[in-house]
Amino acid sequence: MLFTKGHGTGNDFVILPDPDGALDLTAEQVRALCDRHFGIGADGVLRVVRSAKHPDALDLAADAEWFMDYRNADGSVAEMCGNGVRVFTRYLVGQGWATFPVPVGTRSGVVLARAEADSISVRMRTPRVYAASTATTGGFTVPGMAVDCGNPHLVCGLATPLDTLDLTVAPEHDPAVFPDGVNVEFVTPVGDLHVRMRVHERGSGETLSCGSGALAVGAVTLRDAGLRAGTVTVDVLGGSLTVTATESGEWWLAGPAVLVATGEVTL
Amino acid sequence: MLFTKGHGTGNDFVILPDPDGALDLTAEQVRALCDRHFGIGADGVLRVVRSAKHPDALDLAADAEWFMDYRNADGSVAEMCGNGVRVFTRYLVGQGWATFPVPVGTRSGVVLARAEADSISVRMRTPRVYAASTATTGGFTVPGMAVDCGNPHLVCGLATPLDTLDLTVAPEHDPAVFPDGVNVEFVTPVGDLHVRMRVHERGSGETLSCGSGALAVGAVTLRDAGLRAGTVTVDVLGGSLTVTATESGEWWLAGPAVLVATGEVTL
Repeated sequence: MLFTKGHGTGNDFVILPDPDGALDLTAEQVRALCDRHFGIGADGVLRVVRSAKHPDALDLAADAEWFMDYRNADGSVAEMCGNGVRVFTRYLVGQGWATFPVPVGTRSGVVLARAEADSISVRMRTPRVYAASTATTGGFTVPGMAVDCGNPHLVCGLATPLDTLDLTVAPEHDPAVFPDGVNVEFVTPVGDLHVRMRVHERGSGETLSCGSGALAVGAVTLRDAGLRAGTVTVDVLGGSLTVTATESGEWWLAGPAVLVATGEVTL
Repeated sequence: MLFTKGHGTGNDFVILPDPDGALDLTAEQVRALCDRHFGIGADGVLRVVRSAKHPDALDLAADAEWFMDYRNADGSVAEMCGNGVRVFTRYLVGQGWATFPVPVGTRSGVVLARAEADSISVRMRTPRVYAASTATTGGFTVPGMAVDCGNPHLVCGLATPLDTLDLTVAPEHDPAVFPDGVNVEFVTPVGDLHVRMRVHERGSGETLSCGSGALAVGAVTLRDAGLRAGTVTVDVLGGSLTVTATESGEWWLAGPAVLVATGEVTL
């Protein structure tokens, strides 16, 4: 099996080129590929397949030639991943299979990716800030805003330094507000429209980066600044992302996408 | 840079072929290669270089054509690694650069590797069981035997199930016995000359496998059984190893060595 490994701000993926949808990729194979000791190791697998050749994407084929068949490291199917789309399109364009801007089919619809100098920017769905709630971590309860980015987020501003936070244990949340669990972002200001975040992802623990988490943080930061449009820089453990809301109401997530290694895997 | 990724019972390595010693491999490059999110990810790097072409191995060239230039994930130089030699020789023979049995130059001298069905066996230095001591973990103090395998080990038999052990915190040891720290193995019996171990490695925390740890456990198990020679099966989290002491006083560590992926890395 041919593969490429890449990452966006430390969120890493095994890319499997399969233009004609010939690969019967099982959950077991995905787990083996993503295993960090027995396989190659990654947060997920991005299978690169033509929309016309993937049953989940047939109706997207008119709008997007390529489909990102995203699988989580545990083998389950996922809908969309902002860091994943950036790495996916870096690969696609590098292969000469597309040119920016590229529409990409995902299980949550077609998203658009474009290149801006070294970074790749992805148009995301509009985040919805909808409720106040709290998270409890290390014995302290802090207030936060609930944000729906397609998946649930809770963005909590912290007055204390982020470095002292222990995220080896999941923060507690209000199950009435988040019946299916929640991704929790802790944020401190760095400067004007520039924040630092650490994130505890539902089901994964603390991660180096989370695209939809950055989007949620960008939405809350703009809202707190009383702005409808603007660009927020979000520093994550694995690097730096920007979130831009345009005057016309588009939301874009931008950041690096790096391809590291390419070859053949025999699992 | 060409690379292959492989593992022995979950102890994983990036192999870099460099027969003519042309690669100026820096500590920074090693850290980048071993980084599990931004690189390929591994416990260490095995550079494959002719002994005649490596300054540390010039005097070994008559006895071993090939030298295993082993680097830890943090970029530091290491002397020897039993799982590493098995993966190294699997690669060497796969490339057609050697045939079993293969002598391999390491920074602690020449070791011999041979193939036995699916597994590869490495002749290790003789372990020396030399003192009684204790380890304290989770509030309990348990007795153990100190074993010198070139590096220090403490082998502790447990009456309680291994699964309940919390090794996220380093077990405490007696600094008078182990001034430079110690690798601690906790062991429970499975059957005749068959044990299960979990290991906390000095500087790394709990790992899936530790070759010299298995050797130490094999030595203590044979000693407890009143045997000078024999084969002990040691189950580790990442699989199963065997330790054999021969009548003539040789010590062999055997187990799987698997190559997973091969390609080109651009870091």
